[in-house]
Amino acid sequence: MDEVFGIHAVLECLKAKARQIERIYVAQGASNRQIQEVIDLARRSGVPIKFEPRASLDKRSDGGVHQGVLALCSGYQPLELEEILSELSPEPLLVVLDSIEDPRNLGAILRCCAATGVDGVIFPKNHSAGLSSTVSKTAAGALEHLRISRVTNLVRAFGALKERGIWIVGVETDQVKTYDEPDYKIPLAIVVGNEGTGLRRLVREHCDFLISIPTPGKIHSLNVSVAAGVVMYEVLRQRHSRKV
Amino acid sequence: MDEVFGIHAVLECLKAKARQIERIYVAQGASNRQIQEVIDLARRSGVPIKFEPRASLDKRSDGGVHQGVLALCSGYQPLELEEILSELSPEPLLVVLDSIEDPRNLGAILRCCAATGVDGVIFPKNHSAGLSSTVSKTAAGALEHLRISRVTNLVRAFGALKERGIWIVGVETDQVKTYDEPDYKIPLAIVVGNEGTGLRRLVREHCDFLISIPTPGKIHSLNVSVAAGVVMYEVLRQRHSRKV
Repeated sequence: MDEVFGIHAVLECLKAKARQIERIYVAQGASNRQIQEVIDLARRSGVPIKFEPRASLDKRSDGGVHQGVLALCSGYQPLELEEILSELSPEPLLVVLDSIEDPRNLGAILRCCAATGVDGVIFPKNHSAGLSSTVSKTAAGALEHLRISRVTNLVRAFGALKERGIWIVGVETDQVKTYDEPDYKIPLAIVVGNEGTGLRRLVREHCDFLISIPTPGKIHSLNVSVAAGVVMYEVLRQRHSRKV
Repeated sequence: MDEVFGIHAVLECLKAKARQIERIYVAQGASNRQIQEVIDLARRSGVPIKFEPRASLDKRSDGGVHQGVLALCSGYQPLELEEILSELSPEPLLVVLDSIEDPRNLGAILRCCAATGVDGVIFPKNHSAGLSSTVSKTAAGALEHLRISRVTNLVRAFGALKERGIWIVGVETDQVKTYDEPDYKIPLAIVVGNEGTGLRRLVREHCDFLISIPTPGKIHSLNVSVAAGVVMYEVLRQRHSRKV
């Protein structure tokens, strides 16, 4: 079982209906418009609600910021890569995460993926933060709306993407090509790497091309979730812009 | 005194020379190229180094991820708003943070500010995370390179910006104008708001215009540091692009 906590996350969990929710815990005395929304939606969905002292929710969320609500539900079920690839939009955008270690970064990236409406997210079974409660909380419910596949071997997954005509674009530091140069009106997978070490060598070598985000200031790297967001939104901007 | 920890943060602290460093602590047995770089630079700068058991650094960093190095140094000294405004670049870009509560978000935004090379960062003395060690760590050394002012009243600060011909652009949800529509080749201050509640009413009302980041997917908000990064990089892209 998983604990999903925080108002946004629990609300999206209820709305998406992707997981079986066993029970929702609400902190005694917690009361505001959003918590009421959770309670109302849970009642309409036939999900049992239990009111408990706040300290009990603190314990259930392992000290996480639960904002007075926590859902006990079935674990998130990733998809097979083929399931994602068999249902792509006409102009696919996929996001590949190579070795993101920090669950909060992973959560922020997944939230951005759900906001931009990407076709799917692919990341390795090893070398990565798992889909923990922290991820689910930071992702503010995004997890419920995403098509995620965890693969054994990223390079092999790249092969499957390339067979479908998807271009693999790696985000790295110190590349000649900046992120706003390529034409993104092509089937695309954006690959971002580890917070400290970037893309692994084999992963980098199997990208079709590499891009960098310029840093004209005095610090020459960005938080990985910011970097991923900047590139995702450049793809969206190009695809939706009438100017380009 | 402040504890600055993590390899990047300590290195930048040494390089920027903005703070007085009393001593650098290195975990006994910690040894890699980057830690050696810290040790060499500290020695050249005449900063005393003390080797201590890792547990002692864990304690000094209050459980933070110190990666084996920690600097004990004078606190970060914010500037007066006038000091920032009297030294603006020809095409100024400022970032205003209204009530960012989470130190990790604040750190990620400051890192992006230092990477894009903004003219300054303004945020309120109250209603905000402080410039704590967590901020300093997440900002990966960015703090040392930024001109930051903490003001008593944001709306009054807006007055001073407007007097200098700086346009105030608020980032909010559900606005008609999207973030990529305006022409950003004007003196500019970007305002981002609280993680949960966005801009405060008075702050919002005193912006010259408001913009939104579109979310065509199923989640309709982004992590605030991702949102700030997307807008900052759109400003940079427009200003440096030959296409626009």
